[in-house]
Amino acid sequence: MNNKDKPIPSWQRKLHEVIYEADTPMGRGFDIALLILIVLSIILVMLESIKPLYSQYYWEFYTAEWIITILFTIEYVLRIISIRKPIRYIFSFYGIVDFLSTIPTYMALFIGGGNLFFAVRALRLLRVFRVLKITRYMGESNKLVEALKNSKAKIFVFLFAVLIICIIMGTVMHLVEGEAGGFDNIPLSIYWCIVTLTTVGFGDIAPITPLGRLIASFIMITSYGIIAVPTGIVSAEYSRSSKPIPTNTQVCPYCNESKHLDKAEYCHNCGNKLNEK
Amino acid sequence: MNNKDKPIPSWQRKLHEVIYEADTPMGRGFDIALLILIVLSIILVMLESIKPLYSQYYWEFYTAEWIITILFTIEYVLRIISIRKPIRYIFSFYGIVDFLSTIPTYMALFIGGGNLFFAVRALRLLRVFRVLKITRYMGESNKLVEALKNSKAKIFVFLFAVLIICIIMGTVMHLVEGEAGGFDNIPLSIYWCIVTLTTVGFGDIAPITPLGRLIASFIMITSYGIIAVPTGIVSAEYSRSSKPIPTNTQVCPYCNESKHLDKAEYCHNCGNKLNEK
Amino acid sequence: MNNKDKPIPSWQRKLHEVIYEADTPMGRGFDIALLILIVLSIILVMLESIKPLYSQYYWEFYTAEWIITILFTIEYVLRIISIRKPIRYIFSFYGIVDFLSTIPTYMALFIGGGNLFFAVRALRLLRVFRVLKITRYMGESNKLVEALKNSKAKIFVFLFAVLIICIIMGTVMHLVEGEAGGFDNIPLSIYWCIVTLTTVGFGDIAPITPLGRLIASFIMITSYGIIAVPTGIVSAEYSRSSKPIPTNTQVCPYCNESKHLDKAEYCHNCGNKLNEK
Amino acid sequence: MNNKDKPIPSWQRKLHEVIYEADTPMGRGFDIALLILIVLSIILVMLESIKPLYSQYYWEFYTAEWIITILFTIEYVLRIISIRKPIRYIFSFYGIVDFLSTIPTYMALFIGGGNLFFAVRALRLLRVFRVLKITRYMGESNKLVEALKNSKAKIFVFLFAVLIICIIMGTVMHLVEGEAGGFDNIPLSIYWCIVTLTTVGFGDIAPITPLGRLIASFIMITSYGIIAVPTGIVSAEYSRSSKPIPTNTQVCPYCNESKHLDKAEYCHNCGNKLNEK
Repeated sequence: MNNKDKPIPSWQRKLHEVIYEADTPMGRGFDIALLILIVLSIILVMLESIKPLYSQYYWEFYTAEWIITILFTIEYVLRIISIRKPIRYIFSFYGIVDFLSTIPTYMALFIGGGNLFFAVRALRLLRVFRVLKITRYMGESNKLVEALKNSKAKIFVFLFAVLIICIIMGTVMHLVEGEAGGFDNIPLSIYWCIVTLTTVGFGDIAPITPLGRLIASFIMITSYGIIAVPTGIVSAEYSRSSKPIPTNTQVCPYCNESKHLDKAEYCHNCGNKLNEK
Repeated sequence: MNNKDKPIPSWQRKLHEVIYEADTPMGRGFDIALLILIVLSIILVMLESIKPLYSQYYWEFYTAEWIITILFTIEYVLRIISIRKPIRYIFSFYGIVDFLSTIPTYMALFIGGGNLFFAVRALRLLRVFRVLKITRYMGESNKLVEALKNSKAKIFVFLFAVLIICIIMGTVMHLVEGEAGGFDNIPLSIYWCIVTLTTVGFGDIAPITPLGRLIASFIMITSYGIIAVPTGIVSAEYSRSSKPIPTNTQVCPYCNESKHLDKAEYCHNCGNKLNEK
Repeated sequence: MNNKDKPIPSWQRKLHEVIYEADTPMGRGFDIALLILIVLSIILVMLESIKPLYSQYYWEFYTAEWIITILFTIEYVLRIISIRKPIRYIFSFYGIVDFLSTIPTYMALFIGGGNLFFAVRALRLLRVFRVLKITRYMGESNKLVEALKNSKAKIFVFLFAVLIICIIMGTVMHLVEGEAGGFDNIPLSIYWCIVTLTTVGFGDIAPITPLGRLIASFIMITSYGIIAVPTGIVSAEYSRSSKPIPTNTQVCPYCNESKHLDKAEYCHNCGNKLNEK
Repeated sequence: MNNKDKPIPSWQRKLHEVIYEADTPMGRGFDIALLILIVLSIILVMLESIKPLYSQYYWEFYTAEWIITILFTIEYVLRIISIRKPIRYIFSFYGIVDFLSTIPTYMALFIGGGNLFFAVRALRLLRVFRVLKITRYMGESNKLVEALKNSKAKIFVFLFAVLIICIIMGTVMHLVEGEAGGFDNIPLSIYWCIVTLTTVGFGDIAPITPLGRLIASFIMITSYGIIAVPTGIVSAEYSRSSKPIPTNTQVCPYCNESKHLDKAEYCHNCGNKLNEK
């Protein structure tokens, strides 16, 4: 029995339109309602983490959580039944995000009370990943993601080089500063080095010996010089991907090809003469 | 009765020239006087907020404030009566700013003494918005604002993505660090995450567990990699809107070739002499 | 006896292939094994620096260290005997790094016990430079290094200018703040100035007088304005070295015009058909 | 008596060559000696500011200071007598710097003892400006300075806009946080706002109320978005001033003019035909 040839029932088609598309008033309404639900749910998770609030409004949080979970469950079920190939949706990025948005609350029921405290807490906080549902509405097709993807390899090499610098300089600082300034061990020194090189600078660990400060100055000056590198990469990549050559606005009169080089006299697509500028 | 056809009285035209334009000596004088008044007023608001100073020079501050308010009121009235369409000015950005520059002092009279303390204080501090009057003289027509406006949508998407990262990583840090390092609740952890990702790094909250520091390192390295994104956007947008090369606007009188070097005296295309600049 | 004309024994050729190249399964296996060994070795050095861990697992660390050192020694010896010109390798960057990866452990044997403590510690930490062995696999040929090299001179001048600003402003801050805010002496003030200008901002030293804070504000605003300079340099250098448009390397067989668009099928200069790709 | 027509005595010409030029071995030697003297002098001023060192080596510092001052005085005198138009040198940037490098030590003699302590200290620290003598050797002709100069106006407007944001947000933070978080008065709040917006983040002042932290988050996210602006400006300015023109390495065979446009066939300077490429 070929699934592909079965005609789609009209209720499924309509449901699909409402849930997956935003062209109809119903579809737009669904999207807005979902957005509000997501934002509410995130705010709820945030407020729950504030202890005095949680103990005071325990039942309100509990009820709201279940209402939201049930609504997300309905959304998840609707998404599955309204699509032709549910398997593909279920294992897609958003399918997994939608699943993870509902499951923690149910699982908390089974794990139960006090002794698995950390697991329950982790489960509860997992709900914050619901925020990823929002990315659906962010218009990923923009050139930003593309530019980042294109320069991914170069940025990775750069960050790796930064890490190597941090490992070496962190070890040097551990040797020079010792335990006085808080550079107790190498991992900690490397952590400090990352904090410094990225110009975050918490200040919980800071060199106190003259030599340590001299080396720190050297690291900071270096960071000032190399912070330009990722910018240069993305900048060049971005301006390449968004500024693409076609300053020549001619269109070939034979094959309608646009995007010619500035000095082009013949169409590169069909070989015919372009109009005079 | 058509307002448009009524001839503008000469006093109104002259007043308009002085107040709204800067070509005449009078107009320039008015602008400079106003600039000084604005700066003085801002300094006054700042100094007033220093408690010992305020209690010592209470009457001086009070008097100066009223003089400045009255001068701003006169300016506001003059602006209204010297313009043809007062309504349009009143509801324009600068009309509202000019109004807000005068009203707080008057309102403070009516609200009066001790019991509405916060409202009075807020009103008084509202006067700091007078600084926006300065933007009138900043030459908004520059390409900066334009470049920012063009990349507004992309920057917004980027900042939104940063916020989502902060929400997720903030929750993770809350789970990992707990209350020991100051990550008492999720909003606080998200605040820390924003402080870190933007490389501000106050250090009032900082991770203290090894795992927390590892995740923090990861966040910081990421921030170093993505700080390039807004730069790339604005950079590309800006260089697109402002990179025209042909600063020499001469056109060869023989072959009509434009785009000559700045110092060119002969056409590089046909070898004929260019016109004198 | 001319070394060059001697035929290379087949065992040496095979060894060279395995060690220096990554095309064969054996060569790739060797590289992966080495990578794992390097990472393990770095993790070991890091963990060793954590005192409680070190005292508890002293013998495990000791044994692992000797195993790793012996493996690196074997690698070093194999690299020397498998190459035609060992001298060139020995004094190359990686030759020195490979040598420094093995020698500290052996030297620690001779220096021995307690009284040369710092030297031993320095020797032990020298092992962290093993991380540089990884750079072999990072593909240095990328344009990043090239762009950095090209703008090296300009970045150096820039950083030197930053240093001069820091020396002058550091002295001014020392004069203004005195010892109250922690600006005890000029080197310390310069250190603070570097911390501030690079936007790291630890906060261990911070101005507390109003004038000091005013000057600090001025320094920070300046830093915000000049942080763009290295970015601009690398950005321009990078986009110059990497934005050549002619990714299509075809050359027109009729007029020898190169630089065609990627999808070009006809020469834009003479209109003739380009060769099939 | 016309100064211009008087022939330059040979001793003056030779002295000029040694002091102002670096082509001869003598001239290069003079430059290197001066550079070492400047660096020594700066290190001396730095070390002097470290109290324990100063009290221990008082006489050594005193002697060294006088030796350096006398050497700089000799240099200053030589520069004046070896030049044709001393007045022009004296009031030039380097003339003033050279003068300020010598005068503080002499003036300290006249002002004398304890009661004018601050003035003496300021005088002594003035010597740090000797570092500006180094800029003579930094090759100002580079494009960096040019790019900065060209974008000066735009960067100034940008920094001014940042200042206005800081004034307004500083006032808001003062209102919201009050004195609890250290936002005692508006100037202090503005200082905090500058520290935050420039991503320095000392952490000596930090918001502690939830609303204050929310606003701070907003400020930081904004800073992340606008840090790109100066970069974009300088980047575009820099790539414009350094990328454009002389990719064509042809030199006109008639007038030796280099720097022609890529497609130039005639010299833009004298109108003669350029050589075929």
